[in-house]
Amino acid sequence: MHNRALYAYLPPMAESKPPRAPRHRLTEADAQTVVRHMRAGERRAIATAITELERLSPAAPALLKCMQPYLGHALVIGFTGPPGAGKSTLVNAVIAQLRSAGKTVGVIAVDPSSPVSGGAILGDRIRMTSALDDDGVFVRSLSSRGHLGGLSPAAVRIIDALDAAGQDVILLETVGTGQSEIDVAEVADVRVVISAPGLGDDIQAMKSGLLEIADILVVNKGDRPGAELTLQQLLGALSIRAGMAGRVPVCKTTATTGEGVPELVAAIDEAGHKAEAQGARVRRRRRARYLIARAAADLIAQRIRAGGEAALDLLADEVLSGDCSPEDAAAKLLKD
Amino acid sequence: MHNRALYAYLPPMAESKPPRAPRHRLTEADAQTVVRHMRAGERRAIATAITELERLSPAAPALLKCMQPYLGHALVIGFTGPPGAGKSTLVNAVIAQLRSAGKTVGVIAVDPSSPVSGGAILGDRIRMTSALDDDGVFVRSLSSRGHLGGLSPAAVRIIDALDAAGQDVILLETVGTGQSEIDVAEVADVRVVISAPGLGDDIQAMKSGLLEIADILVVNKGDRPGAELTLQQLLGALSIRAGMAGRVPVCKTTATTGEGVPELVAAIDEAGHKAEAQGARVRRRRRARYLIARAAADLIAQRIRAGGEAALDLLADEVLSGDCSPEDAAAKLLKD
Repeated sequence: MHNRALYAYLPPMAESKPPRAPRHRLTEADAQTVVRHMRAGERRAIATAITELERLSPAAPALLKCMQPYLGHALVIGFTGPPGAGKSTLVNAVIAQLRSAGKTVGVIAVDPSSPVSGGAILGDRIRMTSALDDDGVFVRSLSSRGHLGGLSPAAVRIIDALDAAGQDVILLETVGTGQSEIDVAEVADVRVVISAPGLGDDIQAMKSGLLEIADILVVNKGDRPGAELTLQQLLGALSIRAGMAGRVPVCKTTATTGEGVPELVAAIDEAGHKAEAQGARVRRRRRARYLIARAAADLIAQRIRAGGEAALDLLADEVLSGDCSPEDAAAKLLKD
Repeated sequence: MHNRALYAYLPPMAESKPPRAPRHRLTEADAQTVVRHMRAGERRAIATAITELERLSPAAPALLKCMQPYLGHALVIGFTGPPGAGKSTLVNAVIAQLRSAGKTVGVIAVDPSSPVSGGAILGDRIRMTSALDDDGVFVRSLSSRGHLGGLSPAAVRIIDALDAAGQDVILLETVGTGQSEIDVAEVADVRVVISAPGLGDDIQAMKSGLLEIADILVVNKGDRPGAELTLQQLLGALSIRAGMAGRVPVCKTTATTGEGVPELVAAIDEAGHKAEAQGARVRRRRRARYLIARAAADLIAQRIRAGGEAALDLLADEVLSGDCSPEDAAAKLLKD
């Protein structure tokens, strides 16, 4: 009776509640069962797998192993941009469009909620309820890690879970602040950068460096005054960047009415074909390399901390007095 | 004639143009002269020093050495927040307030302009012209480094230059996207996080993790509808964070009219006194440690790259197959 043991501890809507500690471990046979049920589109099995992988529970390695044969199908589309650009509404509109084209969709909404408060203040989840009734859509909110975001490595494991579950497209949405938007650029196969008119000084949004990572640029809230100006500014900003003019499509959308969304989805499709042409291994490798790089950074931070405050202060004082460059201090630190 | 040699290659308004390559090196004696003129408030000397330090020219070590006796006086105030919050206008209003209190002000506007375009698209500089006519204010725009910002280590050296020049307060303003807002939190003595009503979904701004780093929270555009609601939401968000309610003042400002700015400056003063009580060494050490940590991260990235793509791909494949965790892969990578 693997089934009952498996589902016993699952809340009815696991994706709308924070993960709970599993009451027991999944065995290898359980893992096989979970994956079989995931492949059959059983929502609670997907939720189980995600929870185990998010928490990196003892069952996670077995689950990842069982998922291997099914990985590499899904295309990961990252959505990022400044607060107020209307990302969540646009993601909802894109979901609807993808669904009407018969595609199954996984959504990971990265919520840079506080590690202090320990939970979300809600937001994305509220706005995504329309998608929750659809069996072809699986939404998961995920808190970001630590200070000012930064994608949790769990996001990559959840991508694998949704991929193994057979979702055609995985939308990864982040509030565009802090580390998480940098991370999304590394993890996604296609990067959609969303802007909007009226975000104070449009020049600021243009300057934000987000341009550099875009495969597709969107001016959302296209029915607002200034939308055309924002569009022209983006095109202008692209034109002075070597190799970006013409290569990066700029779409105008009004997510609330759906205007421009089919064109955006067409642009995503085209960019997706290019990403697919790279092959699944290349796309998945990029995510693995990102995980390794993050882990390496953590390891370094640990070692620096382990070296002790006093040692670091000593080096800092040498830098302050000009006796040592930060680079030399770093080299000393890493050697110890 | 140290003077002429020194100033010969300086454009009349060095701070409003990108730094140019010095035509010759500064000698140690030149460095002494530059610092003496900086101390006398000579703007072109300050501009020279900043340019040399920004470029980390051969003269930079001598300059830093000569500046040593004068460092530790200035208080560094970081301003960050999402695009559209009105940061630049508020910084301008704060400058005016500080000036009327007789304080000299240095401003470093971190501009996450593209490493591809190589230059700023302007913006902050345009809006800060009112301050440019005032001898008590020194404004420097500084591009951020690489992808999605990240404070240039040059910012810390420029802080030293403005400090040595005797500026009482240094305002460090960043567009709140990417790495740069994380960095500002580490480098500043006092952190001001700016929000505003009408940035789409206010919940998003609240969630943005920026709360965690704030010494002072500001709701700017206080005359707009929804300002009071944003204020209440911020207070609510603070109240659920352990130790933050009451400790972090929340100010409502309207930068365009100056309303609430005196109260904000009073809050900055109070937070500044606390930072000053830590002592100059502690504050400067924090910046040195930040520089070392950044340099260490760069060093690791270099080593990883030097290890070659093939080695990294091999590890990535081990992670993908589940044979190796990202942490173990990172440990292997760092050992080699």
